[in-house]
Amino acid sequence: MTRHALLPALALMLLMPAAAAEAPAGYRSVQEILDASPDSDWHTPGAENLLYMDLDDGRVVIELAPDFAPAHAGNIRTLAREGFWDGTSIYRAQDNFVVQFGDVDGEDPARARPLGSARTHLPAEFQRPSQGLAITALPDRDGWAARTGFVGDFAVAGDGGHTWLAHCYGAVGAGRNNDEDSSIGAELYVVIGQSPRQLDRNITLVGRVLKGMELLSATRRGPEPMGFYEDPAQRTPIRSIRLASDVPAGQRTPLQVLRTDSRTFADTVEARRNRRDAFYKRPAGHVDLCNIPLPVR
Amino acid sequence: MTRHALLPALALMLLMPAAAAEAPAGYRSVQEILDASPDSDWHTPGAENLLYMDLDDGRVVIELAPDFAPAHAGNIRTLAREGFWDGTSIYRAQDNFVVQFGDVDGEDPARARPLGSARTHLPAEFQRPSQGLAITALPDRDGWAARTGFVGDFAVAGDGGHTWLAHCYGAVGAGRNNDEDSSIGAELYVVIGQSPRQLDRNITLVGRVLKGMELLSATRRGPEPMGFYEDPAQRTPIRSIRLASDVPAGQRTPLQVLRTDSRTFADTVEARRNRRDAFYKRPAGHVDLCNIPLPVR
Repeated sequence: MTRHALLPALALMLLMPAAAAEAPAGYRSVQEILDASPDSDWHTPGAENLLYMDLDDGRVVIELAPDFAPAHAGNIRTLAREGFWDGTSIYRAQDNFVVQFGDVDGEDPARARPLGSARTHLPAEFQRPSQGLAITALPDRDGWAARTGFVGDFAVAGDGGHTWLAHCYGAVGAGRNNDEDSSIGAELYVVIGQSPRQLDRNITLVGRVLKGMELLSATRRGPEPMGFYEDPAQRTPIRSIRLASDVPAGQRTPLQVLRTDSRTFADTVEARRNRRDAFYKRPAGHVDLCNIPLPVR
Repeated sequence: MTRHALLPALALMLLMPAAAAEAPAGYRSVQEILDASPDSDWHTPGAENLLYMDLDDGRVVIELAPDFAPAHAGNIRTLAREGFWDGTSIYRAQDNFVVQFGDVDGEDPARARPLGSARTHLPAEFQRPSQGLAITALPDRDGWAARTGFVGDFAVAGDGGHTWLAHCYGAVGAGRNNDEDSSIGAELYVVIGQSPRQLDRNITLVGRVLKGMELLSATRRGPEPMGFYEDPAQRTPIRSIRLASDVPAGQRTPLQVLRTDSRTFADTVEARRNRRDAFYKRPAGHVDLCNIPLPVR
């Protein structure tokens, strides 16, 4: 009787174990694949590349991508070490686009926070040569780029010679003005909606959120069209942003990330391309780059 | 000096008029295109297809799609007319996926709300013949389907013979169990993250949100992995869901939607495919179906 079966409805979409008994022989859900993974398929990102953004409601963990934005990553480390963001806020939340945070008074020379020893000019870091990168390519076509895949913990796109970070959900970028080299990593944004891939190679991405996205994505939206809060009381206070490597061991957030060059990861991608549990009637035979979450435990 | 120019950063991405002076001759931003549009390019959806979902924080306006899900649309009208959802709640919010609402006790025969004169069984309405539909096709390729475009106010995908509603941000669907015909439209979900296109043709979409998405997308997320609130106090109360046609004229929300078969809409699509304002350095030459918002005023 359908009436009493409605609630699990969407539940089954992602919780495959319950449906596994009905699945074709050999099909394993993403969760089953992860549960069976060897520990060697997981890694712990370096503490010098992890940012802890502590909000009243909890911690957001961001991983920096120095292989793609070394100058920005370096400047962000400096800003974190010197407490630049402590007491700042999330001052913008635009629906289906981004939250943005940093010094809301950065525009006002009289009130802007000092940048300390951080650099005040950086090169744009929109892309880099593909040479030297180990890219795990995805099998499916993408309308935005000749190829897509993963490098380390990051979703990337590329053409023959260059590779760049992709604007997927959770990507972290450095706000800039019209000049392409006008970002320094002090004002950052996080994608909270449909992937705005048109921004790829138009702005410097500096990393991605590994944990705590729900603390950012549920931020009350600011006034349209841009989502900047006019009322300071509506901004979300940031207690501090620190590098994990500067935080005492006992206060660190333990986490591991699935290696994107592992067999386990490849198996999860295939399980997403062709879902064959009891819920799905038509496996898509396709998955977009930004529809592949990075497993973190 | 970059320091004082950081705040507008992302601001310029969507507020093109400020940058228009620097744009190549002939380029118009989406906003400029909309501002210049004739009134005849806009239409008012029929009140019998609009649902008003009234929350404590405001109103969400949903447009039903009877051309794609006539049986579900009919049942939803019945449920709304009989007050089925009044006093129910948003009982699920899963990050980067969906919010879901309806009768949280629907699973419990002893506590489930009566369905009144609504039907208790409906056919699956995953797709329909393309014949008879006026489809405004998009120029770019899509990994999920042979073709994409718009029919009326709805983002669609299709193959040679069939067309279906696409799971873009703001799409509204009918939760179901494993049987494809197990939805009746009482438990509904709304996409609040990256478009889960793998659900296309696997579940019945019934419409889309036209206004008020920010009231749904900023819902505090429920516990992982599925986002169902264990604590009833965390659910979002729904005051009522009514058909606009059942609401007195003075209480209706005036709105107009840009016709997707208009020249103005085509111009906005092209402006999104190739952004040539002062901010963008590399126009993408591409846009995905789910990256095209429907202008509503």
